[in-house]
Amino acid sequence: MAPKDVASLDPARARELFRDGLRTPTAGWCRGWTQANLLAVPRALAYDLLLFSQRNPKSCPVLDVGDPGETRTRIFDGDLRTDLPGYRVYENGEPVGETSDVRELWREDLVPFLIGCSFTFEDALLQAGVPVRHIETGRNVPMYVTSLACRPAGVLAGPLVVSMRPIPAALVPAAIRVTSRYPALHGAPVHVGDPKEIGIGDLAQPDFGDPVEINPGEIPLFWACGVTPQAAVMASGVPFAIGHLPGHMAITDVRDHIFQVP
Amino acid sequence: MAPKDVASLDPARARELFRDGLRTPTAGWCRGWTQANLLAVPRALAYDLLLFSQRNPKSCPVLDVGDPGETRTRIFDGDLRTDLPGYRVYENGEPVGETSDVRELWREDLVPFLIGCSFTFEDALLQAGVPVRHIETGRNVPMYVTSLACRPAGVLAGPLVVSMRPIPAALVPAAIRVTSRYPALHGAPVHVGDPKEIGIGDLAQPDFGDPVEINPGEIPLFWACGVTPQAAVMASGVPFAIGHLPGHMAITDVRDHIFQVP
Repeated sequence: MAPKDVASLDPARARELFRDGLRTPTAGWCRGWTQANLLAVPRALAYDLLLFSQRNPKSCPVLDVGDPGETRTRIFDGDLRTDLPGYRVYENGEPVGETSDVRELWREDLVPFLIGCSFTFEDALLQAGVPVRHIETGRNVPMYVTSLACRPAGVLAGPLVVSMRPIPAALVPAAIRVTSRYPALHGAPVHVGDPKEIGIGDLAQPDFGDPVEINPGEIPLFWACGVTPQAAVMASGVPFAIGHLPGHMAITDVRDHIFQVP
Repeated sequence: MAPKDVASLDPARARELFRDGLRTPTAGWCRGWTQANLLAVPRALAYDLLLFSQRNPKSCPVLDVGDPGETRTRIFDGDLRTDLPGYRVYENGEPVGETSDVRELWREDLVPFLIGCSFTFEDALLQAGVPVRHIETGRNVPMYVTSLACRPAGVLAGPLVVSMRPIPAALVPAAIRVTSRYPALHGAPVHVGDPKEIGIGDLAQPDFGDPVEINPGEIPLFWACGVTPQAAVMASGVPFAIGHLPGHMAITDVRDHIFQVP
């Protein structure tokens, strides 16, 4: 079971809980520390993924890339195979399993990518007085596959995935200003308002994560999401990959401040 | 011969002059347009170079990467084999030639990288009242190999290369503030003051480009330089690569504004 005050945990303690089997979304965990998306692909696919990330920097801001077979990186002093609270395994583009331990599936040629996550700037939103509905209600953030295509790279192509936060209209400028300061963590929203304009039919039915309520006077804001490369893995039929379970992030040992621009 | 007012040329006209054989450094050319370093490597080396760039973002901010064999990219509507004012060709890490046309050397497996260049922010420096000595004196910027090691990636390792501009002491804050706004074009300086601290013995003898005078009351400021990956090509004995001649840049079709952060 999660401790009561997950916001004040340090990354090592959080990873220990996950290693011991705790399965939970990490929104609101480890205030002040950077959270990251994981995607590990075979070395043969690593160039395409790195190029895909370079060509789609809003959704795929690369924080670090390990060498083949590595299970920790410069910014993550834990075991990437056990220290996330959930994983998704892909074969030929299909999700074939969700687990909390991928030690038996890890391969010598797997290259782990850590990609910025918008959970990281939620503490800055809260500090600026901008409410974050899924944290208030103890849920995972809702994520949606859009009709916007990423720029392809090699064999990788797919749609942009976004996370959504409903923001009171008067606080939309603050939410945009605050998140713009974190370009390496998806930065400013990619869309404001009508979900249909980006191909989202029903906000109550997210493709990943949990639905949240939108109250009167609130506007849905959409941020590029680090699940996007997993959507490309699916759309492109990649033979093998391991990602995090959406919303169940790698909590790194890097302070969020270092990604803040003036 | 170069026209008199090179600052007001548009990129297409500048590239035409270079294609016709004009060999010149491009500092001060095409005000308002983004300049870029070129490095084209065989596909087998492209992952290492892209990862090297990701791990050394101050010196290697990637603006665009072409597909294998491509001779133009999304941001450069010209011919990468003829439209730069100078090229250096490498074999086994050795510079084996300088030329203004590499059409006969281009290969189907060559992947062209375009990397941000600090010439781009010099117009912003001038507009802020910060003098740029090598433009004043019609020379190339001086560049130096430092004692600072880049973070390696695969077979690529090597030293950081910097460009130097002498700045009147009172204008150092302005120079830092202005260039900080362009993180994709090397951003803020990596070193201020004593060149010996970063392993530069004699400012009068740059490793690339031309020496410039440092007047009393001026402080040398050092910016990470996009020649750094060429230094890695040399240090690592890469079998084959084509780069630009230092200071003789690719002038792209992208406005400098788009790389400015608040």
